[in-house]
Formats: sequence, C-alpha cells, structure tokens
Amino acid sequence: MSVIRNAELPRSALPGIDHVTLAGSAQGLAHLSVWQQSIAPGAATPPHRHDCEEVVIIQSGRGELHLQGRVQAFGPDTTLVVPRNAVHQIINVGEAPLALIGILSVSPVPVFFPDGTPIELPWHS
Amino acid sequence: MSVIRNAELPRSALPGIDHVTLAGSAQGLAHLSVWQQSIAPGAATPPHRHDCEEVVIIQSGRGELHLQGRVQAFGPDTTLVVPRNAVHQIINVGEAPLALIGILSVSPVPVFFPDGTPIELPWHS
Repeated sequence: MSVIRNAELPRSALPGIDHVTLAGSAQGLAHLSVWQQSIAPGAATPPHRHDCEEVVIIQSGRGELHLQGRVQAFGPDTTLVVPRNAVHQIINVGEAPLALIGILSVSPVPVFFPDGTPIELPWHS
Repeated sequence: MSVIRNAELPRSALPGIDHVTLAGSAQGLAHLSVWQQSIAPGAATPPHRHDCEEVVIIQSGRGELHLQGRVQAFGPDTTLVVPRNAVHQIINVGEAPLALIGILSVSPVPVFFPDGTPIELPWHS
C-alpha cells in the first residue's frame, strides 16, 4: 500500500506512551521504520539503545534527551539525532503530551536495555 | 549536535518547493536523511527516483502521488511509502501549501530523473 491513512493504523501502547507505526516492514521496508508517539506528562521511554541510527522530530511538548549521560532540554519543533547504539532516554518534563515522530534506519527495529537485554515491543516495528 | 532547533536550520528551495534538511550527513548520519518541505499550490516535485527507500509523512494539504504510472490522491495525516528506485512525483493539487516530512534511508541522498540522469539538489542532503 503506497498511501496510508494514519488514523486507520493499529494503535499500541507502553505505560505512558501511545504508539502508531506509520511505516516499516509491514509495508515492505527493510531500512526505514517510522513511528508516531505521544508521551504523557511525566512519562518517559526506558533508557535504551538500537543497533541503528535514529532521528526524532518533536512536534509539540517539552522534554529532556538523556544521551549517554548528557542531559539536553528541548521544546517543540526540534530534531533529536541519536547515533547508532547510543544509550538514550526521552522524558516528558512538560505539562502537555510530548508528540513526536521517531525514525529508525532499519525495520524491524531491535531495541535493547543498556546492558544488551532485548526489549520486547508490543508493536510491529 | 544532538538537539537541533528546526527554525535555526538553513533554508533552501526549488521552484515551488521550500526545503529544510532536518538531519542527514551533516549530523553524522549515513543511513537517514530527513527533510521538511512545503510544496506550493499547483507545484510538484519532478518525476524522480532514489536508490534508497523513502517514506513521506503528509502533515497538511492535499496532493497526488504518481508512483510508477499509478495515481493516488491523498489528504493530510497520511503516509506515503516509495520503494527503492520507484519513479515517483508528488503534486500539490489543493489550494493550500502541502507540508510534508520526507524520510530517506541513506545520506547524502542520490536523486535521479527516470532516465538515470542525476539531479543536482541545491541543499545538503
């Protein structure tokens, strides 16, 4: 399918994180996975890493990027760049949902805790 | 730089197309290039292809995706998936700007006319 209506895609969730996979291996892609997420106020991703490059577009909200021990605050209309295998965490430090597009350079996406333990995601990546 | 303020990025253009490269080789990426574009009413990309996968998120506006001879209409909040080397063109058929995020699985991005002639882009991809 070349044209996908985002509102018709399956929705998934982790605690505090609403997720929709916009495109990935289900659309025949091997080198791109595109996620739309909303992180609730006070919620965060776990600290984790991927064996691929990642770009995150922050559409609205305010947060912190914890990247290999360094903390950087960000607001809306920003882009986060996460190098391959860099341990990172995104935290919503604002009072509104943190809306983002997560872009990864492989599909499906392997996700690991910092110690290398695989994280099982509830969504098709 | 891990946190990029999009408004501070250099802007570029082709006729009818405003462009900002949100992330790519300038940020150390080899496998992702992320573009933000606005296509004016009546304007279009040229028919072209890339030797990489592409996903386009349509944020607002209405258009047509011409993909290997097939025409598909789309509105806002849709995702377009373009396979590697598929000839495609995006046309703004609405009366408002067509705002999109273009995501490509390599950086920098080689772009070709359908006959294989390279297209020189005015932006750093």
